[in-house]
Formats: sequence, structure tokens, C-alpha cells
Amino acid sequence: MSLRRLPLLLALALSIPLSAHAIEFSADELQRAKALQQRLLTLDSHLDTPANFGRDGFDIDNRHDHNALSQVDYPRMVEGALDGGFWAIYTGQGDRSPAAHLRDRDAGLQRLLEIRTMLAANRERFALALTPADAVRIKADGKRVVFISMENASPLVADPSLLSFYHQAGLRMLSTVHFANNEFADSATNPKGPEWDGLSDAGKALVREAVRLGIVIDQSHASDAVFDDLVEMMPVPFVLSHSSAKAVHDHPRNLDDARLRRLAKAGGVIQVNAYGGYLVDPGKSEARKQAEEALSKRLGGWGKMDIAQGVELQRGEEELDRQFPVRHASLDDFFAHMGHILDVVGPEHVGIGLDWDGGGGLTDLRDVSELPKITAWLLRRGYDDKQIAGIWGGNLLRVMQQAQAHADKQGT
Amino acid sequence: MSLRRLPLLLALALSIPLSAHAIEFSADELQRAKALQQRLLTLDSHLDTPANFGRDGFDIDNRHDHNALSQVDYPRMVEGALDGGFWAIYTGQGDRSPAAHLRDRDAGLQRLLEIRTMLAANRERFALALTPADAVRIKADGKRVVFISMENASPLVADPSLLSFYHQAGLRMLSTVHFANNEFADSATNPKGPEWDGLSDAGKALVREAVRLGIVIDQSHASDAVFDDLVEMMPVPFVLSHSSAKAVHDHPRNLDDARLRRLAKAGGVIQVNAYGGYLVDPGKSEARKQAEEALSKRLGGWGKMDIAQGVELQRGEEELDRQFPVRHASLDDFFAHMGHILDVVGPEHVGIGLDWDGGGGLTDLRDVSELPKITAWLLRRGYDDKQIAGIWGGNLLRVMQQAQAHADKQGT
Repeated sequence: MSLRRLPLLLALALSIPLSAHAIEFSADELQRAKALQQRLLTLDSHLDTPANFGRDGFDIDNRHDHNALSQVDYPRMVEGALDGGFWAIYTGQGDRSPAAHLRDRDAGLQRLLEIRTMLAANRERFALALTPADAVRIKADGKRVVFISMENASPLVADPSLLSFYHQAGLRMLSTVHFANNEFADSATNPKGPEWDGLSDAGKALVREAVRLGIVIDQSHASDAVFDDLVEMMPVPFVLSHSSAKAVHDHPRNLDDARLRRLAKAGGVIQVNAYGGYLVDPGKSEARKQAEEALSKRLGGWGKMDIAQGVELQRGEEELDRQFPVRHASLDDFFAHMGHILDVVGPEHVGIGLDWDGGGGLTDLRDVSELPKITAWLLRRGYDDKQIAGIWGGNLLRVMQQAQAHADKQGT
Repeated sequence: MSLRRLPLLLALALSIPLSAHAIEFSADELQRAKALQQRLLTLDSHLDTPANFGRDGFDIDNRHDHNALSQVDYPRMVEGALDGGFWAIYTGQGDRSPAAHLRDRDAGLQRLLEIRTMLAANRERFALALTPADAVRIKADGKRVVFISMENASPLVADPSLLSFYHQAGLRMLSTVHFANNEFADSATNPKGPEWDGLSDAGKALVREAVRLGIVIDQSHASDAVFDDLVEMMPVPFVLSHSSAKAVHDHPRNLDDARLRRLAKAGGVIQVNAYGGYLVDPGKSEARKQAEEALSKRLGGWGKMDIAQGVELQRGEEELDRQFPVRHASLDDFFAHMGHILDVVGPEHVGIGLDWDGGGGLTDLRDVSELPKITAWLLRRGYDDKQIAGIWGGNLLRVMQQAQAHADKQGT
């Protein structure tokens, strides 16, 4: 932790109302920021938006405002000057029974199918990217960029060799684990602590196979011991697709400064997250948690809601905010993390992965339409266009380029 | 074999040039036949067209005439009044090594992805059907019907439990085997003869799982011993998606009259094939076979040609016809088979599966645009609209309905 951040941390810790002093940008600043983004290639490394592709009523070409289920669609990407990013095949961690492994396998393939059919149905606006050069070309063609990633390798537990098919179908980034341990790796947030002290043997084999195929490894959600295993074994840099700074908020999902430095030294990149519960302590009461669960249940469960129910979910959450107030993270909190990380590793090792449609978003950055605020802040901090281009995707694509060059060299 | 077919068979056996006496239809007959087809639901149970979905330059919305690689596209389906059918995930039988099983698995998933992305890219013209009622609704919506089938279960050898995912993704018909034996079943045409004397234990387990899921079993390409196993074990009727009559041409891919009767007694359906080499003996010389292989190799191999090369392939094949003449099957040959089968089992157990884009087609039925000739022949034979509706898909959908009802009853 850098000492000059201490006053802000104290303010955060004391839960001083931030609205009065919240960061603001002039219309001019935002316009300049947006214009810059339009010139650059802007990628978010963790879009959970594919979870919406199978929802009744969701159409990525339409705007889904004021909807707790949706923060990313084509109109808002255009408004926020976001070119695309890594669209995740996310699978919730099952109970680790053989039957659950098969369900997870089917769920992963189904999500892959949904991403590819979304692309086929929207060929004029979106295109699949397999390489950094693809992303550049797709932007030049006036389309949005879809790299495919996988969050939680649980769909591969039943048969890790399926990774070859995922790669053939476009997968270019892979994380090993999510909220809880699985057969490959320990999670940073497993309720009962570690099980493998990092990667299991199966996890190491999976990572080696991903490296062989040129797939970028994503450390987000995995335990620090997994991080240490990766630093040890990886012949190429890796990334954290959506993580923040432990020095700013001590949460197991955040990375400490020593590991931030090791990541940068290894050539890797950390993509800063905007998931409120990792940026600050929301101070969520048991009663609130139960009320949230009841709300979701009343609407049929998060996974099964149609997109229209997201509007009702939004209203319900706002009502819960009145009944059981919590501390919601704001841009100030996000910039505290991002600023700290930039100070520790420098702008060549930082990127943006805000966990849209997966829990990300801030009181004053509600969806992708507001992204120019981040660029305006980077401009205020004095970064030049090249540095900002790196943060908006160049750094991440550098890691991808290295992963693919290594695989090519090995003769994949 | 019914004796009154003998003169035609003799003519065929003596290779009497048929062009002089080939069946012909008046413009009126064809117009009436087409109008009837437009009123009915018309399905072909074996379309190999998905093999073209991954070919560079193939667009199902465009007409690909005079092209040895293409017999089915939207314009020609409209012209021939074909509503759709079963679009096959075909996988060539590999060498049965563990590596080949994984390649076959990936190839099957890839073809599934290609079918689903074709559908997503052509939502105005095609729709996925999962049930007989879907097919009726899709026709009423003015679209073409896509049921998904699998020809050769080799993509399931590595992990038969993947069948659950295929079913979830739309698979509704499954054949066990193709030109050569695999781990599930003996092929009718295996060079070294039978290996399992029908279905292997794995094959029986696969069939039981398909029955549990309500997937229709397709016996085409499997050996007669597999047929006998199916009759023994199946709690619901099954089909042959593209097969013809052994009594008309003695080929292992064709079904003898005793089995035709057993099939009908079990409620099943045989969909008559238009694959020339099964309808007649083409009398292909070794020199011709080698010349065909050389031609395919010169164009980069069948699987790798782009669609434009199909025009060159067509011209090359026509040149081979001059250099090394063979006997090509005609509609007369096809009607000899279809007539015989209709005589043996009656119109309630017959359908149409012409192996388009998989080797099917006749000198005077070159692609789907000419399908009204078949209906005109059925009308000449005196079948009524209801019987013709059965032949054009109703019989097949009756079997599907029974398979799905059985699965529902078992609580799938």
C-alpha cells in the first residue's frame, strides 16, 4: 500500500458519505475521452453478458436500460465507445458429483453455442476474434469484437480434452476456478479453505494444455497459491481478467502488492474490476442477504428470469436499499484501486475488466454507456494516448500475442 | 421380390439404355404435384447439406447450380417444394485410435455448431424443429424445417454421455455407424465383415440412452444383424433414413423383404434412397475409381474444397463419364425400388431420404428442385393426398411422435 492513499482509505473505512465529494467530469472532458476511445481499440476482459443470450426477450441489438440483468448491449456499447472484449462462458460451480460434472459440461457447451449463434445472428455488428490482429480488423470494419473466454473450468472436469474443441470453436482465455474449489484449483473464496494448495495435478495439466494451444490463462477467482503456481510454471505471461488491489481493500479476490509486482515482472496484466463487494466492504446484513435471496426466488431465480423481469429485479433491489441500506461502491472507490495498481505496476500492466452483467458496476458507472469517465480520469492522471491504448486493451493483447507466439513456436 | 417387377429388373440387369424409355412427366402433372407438395409438409430424412455449411463461399440463401458439391439450397428447396428434413451431423469413420475418437468428437460438435449458426444466420427462412408439432408450425410460418440428425455415432465413442448435450442442442435422430464398423455397431459395408454380430454392448447402451431421450434410431448403414438387434430391443419403432430394396438390387446397404415386413410390423419406416451405387451396379472400373480419387485430390480433397471448386469437380466428373463410362441410376431405377418397397410394406411405412449432398441424385433428378417428379409418380400410382402426406413426412413424424411420447412417459 502506498502511504499517500491513506487519507482516502480512511475516508472509505469510516464510510464517509462520498456523494458530496464524488468525482465529477465536465461534459468537455467526457467528450474528449469518448473521442479518444473511439480512436483506440477498447476491450473489457470480463463480460458476463453471454448469460443473457439464452434469456427470453434479450436482444443484444436493443437497449435494456434500468434492468438489473443487463449492463451491456449494442446501443450502450456504441454510446460508451466500447469495442468489445472477452465474452465469458461462465458456469456456476456445481456440487462436484459425477452428475454435476456432466451438467457443467453441457452448460459450458450450451453457452458456447449461444455465443456463436449470437454472432451468427448479428454478423453486421459483431464478429468473432481469434487473434489480436482480428480485433484490430474487426474494429476497422466498424464491428464489435467478441473474444471468447471461460470463467471456471468446471465444464472441463468431466473431460479436460474438450479444451481442444473449445479452442477450435474460438476459446482464447481460460480461468481455472470460481467462487469455490473445483478439481483443478483452489478458489480465493472457498468457504472451507484450500484443498490443493494451489493447482491440483489435473489443474497443472489443464494449464499446460491451454499454454500449448495458445490460450491465455486468467488467474481471477483462483487462490494466491494458484497465482504462485502459475508464476512458477508459466512459460508465458498470464492475466487477471477482473481483480483489484488487496492494499486498498483486504479481500481474498484482490491481489497484494508483492504479487502485483511479480505479475508485472512476469509480463502479465491485471484488469481492474468494478465488483462492489471486492472494492469496499458493503456491510451487508444477514437480513439483507436473506431479503435478496427471497427477491430472486420470487422472480424464479437469477438463471431463469426473462429479461423483462430484470426491471422488476431492479425495482426490488432499490426497495431493499431503502429497507436494508448497504454501502455501494462508487467510481472513487474504483479509482482508488486502479490508481494504486497503476502506481505499483505502471500503466503497461493494467487493464479494464469490470465484470459487467456479472455483478460489476458502480453508483456512478451503471453500465457500459458511462465508460468515458474512466478514460477522462486516465487523462486527468496525465497518461498519454499510447498508455491509455495499452490500458484499454493493448496490454492484454500483448499477453495474448505472446501466448499465441509461444504456441506457434511449439508447433500447435 | 414381387414377380411383376421382373421385366424391369431384367432390363436393368441387361443395362439396356434407359434414356429412350425413361419416365417422363407432363408440365401439368408436375405443376399439380408441386402444388400438392406446397400444401403438405415435405421432409427428406437425410440431408448431408451441413457438410457444406463450413465451406468457403457456401451460402444456403444462394443457388449453387451445376456444382457437384451442392444439391440443396433455399432457392432450390422453394422450387422443388421441399419444406426441410433431417440435416445430418455426418462424421467419416476414423481409424478408431484414441486420438481419432477425439477428432471425431470435435468434428461432431463442430458440425452441430455449424448447423446452429446457419439457423441463427437465417432466422427468416429456416427454423430448428424439435417435435412434429414444431415442423407443422414452422411450415405455417413460411419457413423451412431443420431437424438435426447424426449419421455415424463416432463422435460419441470418446464419451457417449455427450448424447445428452446433443439432445439439448436439438438432436432428434441418431444412426450408430457408417461405411465401416465402429465401437457401437457393425456396418453393412465393413471391408472385413462383422465384429460385434450386430450392436456391441456399448451400442446397446447408446441405443437405450437415445430411446430414453426420445431420439429416433436410424438403422441406415448398419448391418442386418444390427437391424435384428433393434427389432429385438426397441420399445418404439425405428427408421431407415436412406435405404433401398435388396430384392431390386442386391447390395448390403439395402433391406430384404423379410426385414422390410418386420420393420413395418414394428411400426417403423423406410425412407427410400437415391444413392446410385445402391440402386444399381454402376459397373465402375478400377481405372475410373483411381481417376475419381486423382480428381478429388487435385482439387484439395472433398472435405476441403470451397464451394466454387464444386463447379470444377462437376466438369471433371463429366469428363470422367466420357473417358470411363459407368451406369448412372435414373428415376426409373429409383421408382423400381420405391415401388417394390411400397408393394411390400404399404404406403404407411415408406418415406423419402435421398442422400442429397451425400452422394444421392439421379440422371433425371439432379437436385431438390426436381422433387415434384416423385410426387407426380405417386399420383400416377393412385395414392391419395393423405397417403402422399405420409410418404412425404407424416410416417416419419409418427415414429418420432412415438419415440418422444415413450420418453415423456418414462419421465425424461
